[in-house]
Amino acid sequence: MAGETTPRERVRSGGRSEKVRREVARTVLDLLAEGVVDFGPSEIAARAGINRKTIYRWWPTYTDLIREALSEHSGTVEVPDTGSWPRDLRLLAQRLAAFFASPVEMSTSAIIAGRRQPELAALILEHFEPVQQEWRRMVARGISRGEVDTACSPRAVINMLVSQLVLTPLTLCRPPTDEEIEELVTLVLRATKPAITARRGDAE
Amino acid sequence: MAGETTPRERVRSGGRSEKVRREVARTVLDLLAEGVVDFGPSEIAARAGINRKTIYRWWPTYTDLIREALSEHSGTVEVPDTGSWPRDLRLLAQRLAAFFASPVEMSTSAIIAGRRQPELAALILEHFEPVQQEWRRMVARGISRGEVDTACSPRAVINMLVSQLVLTPLTLCRPPTDEEIEELVTLVLRATKPAITARRGDAE
Repeated sequence: MAGETTPRERVRSGGRSEKVRREVARTVLDLLAEGVVDFGPSEIAARAGINRKTIYRWWPTYTDLIREALSEHSGTVEVPDTGSWPRDLRLLAQRLAAFFASPVEMSTSAIIAGRRQPELAALILEHFEPVQQEWRRMVARGISRGEVDTACSPRAVINMLVSQLVLTPLTLCRPPTDEEIEELVTLVLRATKPAITARRGDAE
Repeated sequence: MAGETTPRERVRSGGRSEKVRREVARTVLDLLAEGVVDFGPSEIAARAGINRKTIYRWWPTYTDLIREALSEHSGTVEVPDTGSWPRDLRLLAQRLAAFFASPVEMSTSAIIAGRRQPELAALILEHFEPVQQEWRRMVARGISRGEVDTACSPRAVINMLVSQLVLTPLTLCRPPTDEEIEELVTLVLRATKPAITARRGDAE
């Protein structure tokens, strides 16, 4: 394929600059947010006003386009690391509540739940595996600081937290209220509180 | 309408016997489980082999048919009342896990999440309001027995429990595993455990 491009074209189409990458991601995300799931590199090139050769070189398949878009999107949720489990948990809950209620997430959640595009659904779920691992690591940091009980599995804690934040916009078409987020955070803090084993205060 | 039926017909079409009611509910549930959402009294009469007049008399609208079906279906989840919060919670979690993974629930959840049938989605959500209240009363009984902390809102506890049980089949197309249910139940028990206020043991 590289042999087909003249030097001039190669310069014009450029490398995968950060600007181009973000434009491609944004275009795919806009389509997903509109509920449009049926597109390929050509449509993205036309819609984003980017050289087709550039798109075909770096994102030759639908899968490549979707992965780029999802990485861009989930990168918008910064995983907090404040050194305090209650602060980290509250921040993550607030950020995820906004994230899952965003048009892109509402649309991709509906794609998964609607079961009409099983391959796209599988791609989205696969994308979230490493993302969820980052969230779980936040719980693991709480355990290592002694703020989260060692009996708590990071996976179970994150599942419990995230499920409600995903399901509320999906079923009620609205983000969780501040009160609902706070109630959920309070319950998760109670659930993860370390059991008192050593009562050092009593010995003094 | 009653004036149109001859006495003979009236006898033949019969009242809303329990048998007929269940057959109607079952027929609607079968259609929903197949993902068919577009039907009326005539289709139900034909499919169930029940006199059309009977159907039109007792379930004149789509809404009536859906309500009947959903009542029948959610009636299959018996809300436990064993006198013990941990036992009630575990039983409810196990029953709801099976319930939400059933074909009918998978289908109605997808209808809500897919946002293609907003009126049907609203009907389903409306139906679940009193059902959820029953689940919340189970938490309230735990509070009144001193097994659940008075600071816990029954609504928040049920939201946290149910969200994961709904979301797992919806996104992963499988029920939660026994281990996932047990981890969830353990976290909810930890979250709802009463704070120790009086330390009666120490006074002895």
